[in-house]
Amino acid sequence: MAAGSAARCAAIIGTGLIGQGWAIVFARMGWDVRLYDVNASMLAEARTLILQQLRELETQGLLTGADAIIEHVYVASSLADAVAGASYIQENSPEKVDIKRALFSELDAVAEPDAIIGSSTSSIPASAFTEHLPGRHRCLVAHPVNPPYLIPVVELCPAPWTSADALEGASAIMSAIGQKPVRLRREIEGFILNRLQGALLQEAFRLASEGIASAEDIDTTVKDGLGLRWSFMGPFETIDLNAPGGIADYCARYGGLYESIGATQGECVTWNGALLDALSAERRGLLPQEDLAKRRFWRDEKLMRLMRHKQSNGDNNG
Amino acid sequence: MAAGSAARCAAIIGTGLIGQGWAIVFARMGWDVRLYDVNASMLAEARTLILQQLRELETQGLLTGADAIIEHVYVASSLADAVAGASYIQENSPEKVDIKRALFSELDAVAEPDAIIGSSTSSIPASAFTEHLPGRHRCLVAHPVNPPYLIPVVELCPAPWTSADALEGASAIMSAIGQKPVRLRREIEGFILNRLQGALLQEAFRLASEGIASAEDIDTTVKDGLGLRWSFMGPFETIDLNAPGGIADYCARYGGLYESIGATQGECVTWNGALLDALSAERRGLLPQEDLAKRRFWRDEKLMRLMRHKQSNGDNNG
Repeated sequence: MAAGSAARCAAIIGTGLIGQGWAIVFARMGWDVRLYDVNASMLAEARTLILQQLRELETQGLLTGADAIIEHVYVASSLADAVAGASYIQENSPEKVDIKRALFSELDAVAEPDAIIGSSTSSIPASAFTEHLPGRHRCLVAHPVNPPYLIPVVELCPAPWTSADALEGASAIMSAIGQKPVRLRREIEGFILNRLQGALLQEAFRLASEGIASAEDIDTTVKDGLGLRWSFMGPFETIDLNAPGGIADYCARYGGLYESIGATQGECVTWNGALLDALSAERRGLLPQEDLAKRRFWRDEKLMRLMRHKQSNGDNNG
Repeated sequence: MAAGSAARCAAIIGTGLIGQGWAIVFARMGWDVRLYDVNASMLAEARTLILQQLRELETQGLLTGADAIIEHVYVASSLADAVAGASYIQENSPEKVDIKRALFSELDAVAEPDAIIGSSTSSIPASAFTEHLPGRHRCLVAHPVNPPYLIPVVELCPAPWTSADALEGASAIMSAIGQKPVRLRREIEGFILNRLQGALLQEAFRLASEGIASAEDIDTTVKDGLGLRWSFMGPFETIDLNAPGGIADYCARYGGLYESIGATQGECVTWNGALLDALSAERRGLLPQEDLAKRRFWRDEKLMRLMRHKQSNGDNNG
């Protein structure tokens, strides 16, 4: 394989929903994608499922040429076959540290010498499954949001021994394929996204547990309030623009209010028992169990339309 | 004034930015709006500033007939003149409890007997400035987000003595003019929106203070990740759809992770000193002080385009 194509060849190891999503992200940007999964039946159907999703994206106007794009996707016969020639490897195995440790041993042994190896894990730091590897310097977490072809952020989290070159290389690849890489400077549980989501959810559960408002009204406060600005600005830029003098002025004006609020937000409520029963009952009243799958299609269509809207408005240059 | 028009007549007391925004919200839905402000120069320019904003909304395709809509907006000569015939009164005075207490005394004395009186306050519970009033049962907080003509959520927070009729009436009026009312069942500092925002901001400041990531990368994690779904679903619906069996299944799968994360999120960092200096320096590097105003126009145009997108996609029926 020529160097030119090796530079744009990715191996996707583990071909469930997340792996399929990654395959789309690489293939739609013209990369060659090589799929592998130890589960033969999952691997056998992956290419068909990827094509279905590509066609749906085409229907929604988010890409053209689904049938040509799928030609970039190759089903490998083994792990070694998958990583041959790949400059980037994305691992998507189950969230079990033993599985990831064994799989990374295999990957490090057969990958191209310069290949970077990223893990999709949302909850396990790379240090927990790469310490023993000769090539541990090229391993890191590259945590996507599902589905990665609609939600572009990718959290890059290095282990203590991940090299600056590997982090820089992974970041450059993610940017090149149109994702939005963010870099953690060191490992922390939950990375950034789930820590931020968890903090907001903790308060949402707390408000519900104290009977302040219904889950529906808490959701409305986000989707018709907070979430609008956050879909094109982050929380820091939002407050930076919300006081005449910027973030320093904002904190001078409102820091006391938030400090006072914060003093009542320290204790966590647990997401189970009667509280969860009540929230679950409210959600099932709004959306019956049998409609969950249909609503996920609704969500993905909303996301597709939102992304088309953002593309047409040049949000990326904003 | 005939009962029919009285039912669609709102008084806006205090005509700064928030008052102007409320005037637009009512007037664009065909309500008569009566403006008053104790500051004569502010009152004198309010109608012109409202017309400018209406024309900008027309330019952006969010309404038609700005010049006809402004005809619904009347500049009153006194507080009594403003509230005469108004079925709803929105108070937008400075965030000082003494000012609000005195103003509500005047308002309660001159308002129509059945008028509902809402306060735009973001930080003072209605119980702090209405307890002494004969008509305290018809007073409540109706907290908007700025600008209310682009961000529809309104937090309705009753005092202990606010009647169910007044809460129901305010909610019906807000829905009728196209806003999205949410109801708090009792008073709590920060209401819902700023408590949720505060919780997420606390974690954002904490991540920055611990050196985990730059403010820019934290913002990217929200605007290219979390904020996308939150712009059309709330946090509860988001997790409800993120596990096969819904929210109960989600909490069974991930509750432990969030509990573990939550245990490290209890202690607040204060938003000042070296931390704020560093964040402010990063923001000013990304956006110089002199460009803040221009960036606010950018934000409002983004919001207008997003709202037009949501309207065209029937998000309100979603």
